[in-house]
Amino acid sequence: MNDYSAEEFLDLSKFSGLGEDPAYHPPVLSDRPRDWPLDQWDEAPRDLGYSDFSRYQWRGLRLLKDPDTQAALHDLVFELKPRTIVELGVYGGGSLAWFRDLTRLMGLDTQVIGIDRDLSRCQIPQDEMHNISLREADCNDLSTFEQLKDLAHPLIFIDDAHANTFNIMRWAVDHLLDEGDYFIIEDMIPYWYRYSPQHLIQYLSSFRDVLSMDMVYANTSPQLDRGVFRRLPKKDR
Amino acid sequence: MNDYSAEEFLDLSKFSGLGEDPAYHPPVLSDRPRDWPLDQWDEAPRDLGYSDFSRYQWRGLRLLKDPDTQAALHDLVFELKPRTIVELGVYGGGSLAWFRDLTRLMGLDTQVIGIDRDLSRCQIPQDEMHNISLREADCNDLSTFEQLKDLAHPLIFIDDAHANTFNIMRWAVDHLLDEGDYFIIEDMIPYWYRYSPQHLIQYLSSFRDVLSMDMVYANTSPQLDRGVFRRLPKKDR
Amino acid sequence: MNDYSAEEFLDLSKFSGLGEDPAYHPPVLSDRPRDWPLDQWDEAPRDLGYSDFSRYQWRGLRLLKDPDTQAALHDLVFELKPRTIVELGVYGGGSLAWFRDLTRLMGLDTQVIGIDRDLSRCQIPQDEMHNISLREADCNDLSTFEQLKDLAHPLIFIDDAHANTFNIMRWAVDHLLDEGDYFIIEDMIPYWYRYSPQHLIQYLSSFRDVLSMDMVYANTSPQLDRGVFRRLPKKDR
Amino acid sequence: MNDYSAEEFLDLSKFSGLGEDPAYHPPVLSDRPRDWPLDQWDEAPRDLGYSDFSRYQWRGLRLLKDPDTQAALHDLVFELKPRTIVELGVYGGGSLAWFRDLTRLMGLDTQVIGIDRDLSRCQIPQDEMHNISLREADCNDLSTFEQLKDLAHPLIFIDDAHANTFNIMRWAVDHLLDEGDYFIIEDMIPYWYRYSPQHLIQYLSSFRDVLSMDMVYANTSPQLDRGVFRRLPKKDR
Amino acid sequence: MNDYSAEEFLDLSKFSGLGEDPAYHPPVLSDRPRDWPLDQWDEAPRDLGYSDFSRYQWRGLRLLKDPDTQAALHDLVFELKPRTIVELGVYGGGSLAWFRDLTRLMGLDTQVIGIDRDLSRCQIPQDEMHNISLREADCNDLSTFEQLKDLAHPLIFIDDAHANTFNIMRWAVDHLLDEGDYFIIEDMIPYWYRYSPQHLIQYLSSFRDVLSMDMVYANTSPQLDRGVFRRLPKKDR
Amino acid sequence: MNDYSAEEFLDLSKFSGLGEDPAYHPPVLSDRPRDWPLDQWDEAPRDLGYSDFSRYQWRGLRLLKDPDTQAALHDLVFELKPRTIVELGVYGGGSLAWFRDLTRLMGLDTQVIGIDRDLSRCQIPQDEMHNISLREADCNDLSTFEQLKDLAHPLIFIDDAHANTFNIMRWAVDHLLDEGDYFIIEDMIPYWYRYSPQHLIQYLSSFRDVLSMDMVYANTSPQLDRGVFRRLPKKDR
Repeated sequence: MNDYSAEEFLDLSKFSGLGEDPAYHPPVLSDRPRDWPLDQWDEAPRDLGYSDFSRYQWRGLRLLKDPDTQAALHDLVFELKPRTIVELGVYGGGSLAWFRDLTRLMGLDTQVIGIDRDLSRCQIPQDEMHNISLREADCNDLSTFEQLKDLAHPLIFIDDAHANTFNIMRWAVDHLLDEGDYFIIEDMIPYWYRYSPQHLIQYLSSFRDVLSMDMVYANTSPQLDRGVFRRLPKKDR
Repeated sequence: MNDYSAEEFLDLSKFSGLGEDPAYHPPVLSDRPRDWPLDQWDEAPRDLGYSDFSRYQWRGLRLLKDPDTQAALHDLVFELKPRTIVELGVYGGGSLAWFRDLTRLMGLDTQVIGIDRDLSRCQIPQDEMHNISLREADCNDLSTFEQLKDLAHPLIFIDDAHANTFNIMRWAVDHLLDEGDYFIIEDMIPYWYRYSPQHLIQYLSSFRDVLSMDMVYANTSPQLDRGVFRRLPKKDR
Repeated sequence: MNDYSAEEFLDLSKFSGLGEDPAYHPPVLSDRPRDWPLDQWDEAPRDLGYSDFSRYQWRGLRLLKDPDTQAALHDLVFELKPRTIVELGVYGGGSLAWFRDLTRLMGLDTQVIGIDRDLSRCQIPQDEMHNISLREADCNDLSTFEQLKDLAHPLIFIDDAHANTFNIMRWAVDHLLDEGDYFIIEDMIPYWYRYSPQHLIQYLSSFRDVLSMDMVYANTSPQLDRGVFRRLPKKDR
Repeated sequence: MNDYSAEEFLDLSKFSGLGEDPAYHPPVLSDRPRDWPLDQWDEAPRDLGYSDFSRYQWRGLRLLKDPDTQAALHDLVFELKPRTIVELGVYGGGSLAWFRDLTRLMGLDTQVIGIDRDLSRCQIPQDEMHNISLREADCNDLSTFEQLKDLAHPLIFIDDAHANTFNIMRWAVDHLLDEGDYFIIEDMIPYWYRYSPQHLIQYLSSFRDVLSMDMVYANTSPQLDRGVFRRLPKKDR
Repeated sequence: MNDYSAEEFLDLSKFSGLGEDPAYHPPVLSDRPRDWPLDQWDEAPRDLGYSDFSRYQWRGLRLLKDPDTQAALHDLVFELKPRTIVELGVYGGGSLAWFRDLTRLMGLDTQVIGIDRDLSRCQIPQDEMHNISLREADCNDLSTFEQLKDLAHPLIFIDDAHANTFNIMRWAVDHLLDEGDYFIIEDMIPYWYRYSPQHLIQYLSSFRDVLSMDMVYANTSPQLDRGVFRRLPKKDR
Repeated sequence: MNDYSAEEFLDLSKFSGLGEDPAYHPPVLSDRPRDWPLDQWDEAPRDLGYSDFSRYQWRGLRLLKDPDTQAALHDLVFELKPRTIVELGVYGGGSLAWFRDLTRLMGLDTQVIGIDRDLSRCQIPQDEMHNISLREADCNDLSTFEQLKDLAHPLIFIDDAHANTFNIMRWAVDHLLDEGDYFIIEDMIPYWYRYSPQHLIQYLSSFRDVLSMDMVYANTSPQLDRGVFRRLPKKDR
């Protein structure tokens, strides 16, 4: 057991780019037998006995998208047939492999691009990297995003890094998104809405001429809650 | 619009082998614009506006497994590495394609077998049938199940037809399942527990020497609720 | 204790005409003392300790209508003063006795008619059958319903057999119901709405000229949920 | 419409002996049509549109027991076969008629006694008073309860007047209840538990040698919540 | 431990002017250690282990306003800057001290007046009575309220005695409240709405020309639920 | 209305030290009249119509502690009688003024110390700073915390900055906290428990010899959820 005085503590508040051990570990039942006898079926506990969020995986890679989010993004990919998916925040890489597998199964030729300041935690085996590319960039230095130009459309851009989001959104609108492309903010809308509702409403409102919320996907899961935006047609302004 | 007197009504109570149009139709928002303007972001409705269960699909095939069930079965397949998956109840065939895609992505050589009285509603395109086979059998005539012997193990057997379940379960225990194989009852446990609790408890209890409930998967989704059973080691009786 | 290999299993999925032992057995507390000491009043468990649905009874006969349903049907009977009540699905017969007692208490001369394929499970003592009649008929053979003509009005027709419901509904509209009579579907609407929403909406819609939903009773209990319909005036069509 | 300056206001806080118009008025839907068209079935509102508590009636008499309470008391009456039921608080008299009807249907010869300070609001028609008697008494003057002695057992005593309850409970224990008889407190336990938990626990605890809580009935409905007590055997003290 | 036969029972149903021991006693954890070890942090129970309502205090005086109510009344006081606050129902006096402290902190010169039939239970120390005055009056004898005239405005009048409320409300409207003053009913609206909805709606409606509900405060806490009313401008009638 | 291309976006993900306009603005009802007529009392909307979290204030200063948290911290201050309260994260300063007012009312001589990287947003008027001091320090540079030594005990240390929390906790244990002092983490435990459960459990466990969780306060509000720790007696290690 560890002792506080010898511990090196990470800053858990930095959602942007930290978190747990990126390798997937299967759940363990420590408080009950895994084999429950059928003549006591009626008395079996109903709770999971482990955190469900840390349980989600895709073929052995941790996947920080819960099942409802997976279902919604599957539907969006199936409808849009994107040729590029960009995700900010790589972590263990499970999302990248999941998007790649999905698009390949659908017969699409889609490039999946993962962006992070720190690519070292990626757990995708080297021979599983087909159609996946990793790129180092810093959300706080938008010049490092220059490398993203000239991507194929349709395109989905997902902010899963949670750093400097709205300036990145402006950059994407100005430099990356064509009409019909998507910009998705995962996880953070409910927190921002609680702690910074006025900023959030004002920020989103300022994009009213260039983005709209897609109501088919924006309600489908807590992680996507009111965070799925589609590029509107470009107008002469 | 239809008129009742000219209508041919199906018996909706027969969960076993009927249901809706097996072809997938994407959801339509009839009560709100799909593009929601961002300067009214805060007033957007939060409900879906369509039945979520009928929305689930896999690559354009309706999938009558909700996202939590998909996640749990993914995990079971990943852990068990089954060589055979048998599902009673084919309907549109979405589950079969989903299991096949999943096992293929995991590098497994798994035969996926769909069983139904009526195979005509299957929507899987002919050139997508790799590793999937359809077989006609009648849950009420167990002799029609004879064709299922000599399957490769490990094996997962899923009852999704909801007809004569417990006699099929006995048949599977006696003729099909090896130690560690799974028998899964989808959807019905909560209804049976409400309307026939004494029978249900008595029936499951009678299998106490040959099956146990697997607590890792038995709580993970409403469709699998307390219905995931694993073959115990065979004892001299 | 039973053993699976010697067990004769009923098909629990056939809501239509099966179920538990029709005889009523009072609930038993197996996990706590029935007499709870008052100096530990504050620590008493709050849950029932037994399935509430299987607890419902009427004078010793099991009654598969929960209390809210009883209250709503009491009100409907009190308002309509029916001269005939037909219920599909007899089972133990508790509902029939309950309707008979209720109408008699209200001073009505009401014939209560129970219909089932199998009348052998009825638990009403022979000398309690006043104003109750049992008739054998098969929901899947509407010719067996011919015997129901020439009944006194007002009339309430309750589908509690859950087999071939909408064709029976058509038959009742065409052959049985006068303006102001009721056709009630118990229990099944929520399940059908989950698994077959398009069929359900289409089927009900086709009756738009001959039936309406009665909003006073259609919301009052889960068992009656959106399933209480009233015969509209007959129009020249 | 009334004007506040000309209004005579009753003290609504006196739960004990006041309330609404004791005559029953059927619920009215003011915010929607009662006949809802079936081609808009899916859009029908799901809420009741009227207060459910004021809707409860028994054969046209308002009944201030909700359906779950009725079901639980039905079961208690069926099990105990009481020869006397005493209820404090008469109001419109619906409960008295309901208890009388129930016991008569069960073939019991049960006297139902209603006690109130003010019997004038009773709505039971004169020719419906068989086996019902009304008696004037004042909860705050226990000498007026003397008339209750020499009642037949088994006996159920229900406090539905909510005045001086625990002193009446002591009086009933000392002068009325035999072993196995019941003392029931309706409605008030949750409020007392919120506003006076220490008194409540202390008061109930003081009866530990003479009463116990009956766990079969004490959880079955909100109105009976933890308020069903049974007389213990008398001990030499 | 007490014995029922020697106990003097208070009438708990009289919300108006009784209740628990008015002195504050800090909560005690009897079912778990107060110091919970951090290497078992994840297993700590999440419930409180004591009644939260009886826990609320202000500087050692019991305070029968829950936190949400405190927050809402703080906001009202901050907005209105009242020069008089009258509260019916003194009990331990915690509310009076809380209002006095609050107004003093805001730099207001506010008189806080507590009214009760029985002032003996007040726990405010004698040297803490600055700007607080206690007055004996009987809610059922409005002539005893004459002493309340000539109070400074703006004024907040809170009914926390729950006796004869609507006649007191009429008296306050006629004799005490100026335009913009408040009349607040704490706690009782939900109970009245359940047991006497018709009276309640009729009574409130009769005040439509002299009071309105203030929607900023009327929804903010369960205790204030729909019970915050503001004096309208006086019209020539 | 703003335009995205001219907007300067703050990084909302930095809970640590950003947020909304620190000045308090009273809530505005934009979707309903503030004066609701009493003859439509029954139809009044029940929701707030504005974000409740942004509504909390103390005497005109925004207060980012919700009412339940205020009640719990009031109780802790009342019990502990701290001579020093340190809060990381000053923002508008509402908490500091609230703690100062509270301790002064309780007759305590308590120094309230606010620490932030950026003290410019503090809204406390200059002449309201009695017993409050502001100090600039950087959570990521613990050397800037040296100024905090030699503080009077008992002491409460609150992390409301959410940056580098566990290293600050170690620093506080080693340099600041005496037996019985408190270290409190506001807001973040539920988020960390969702996204980094293993780290969180491991980090807290490492403090098992020097801190315990105080079960009286650790459950009392969502903001304090499992985040109230007390310094254990120092042992020879």
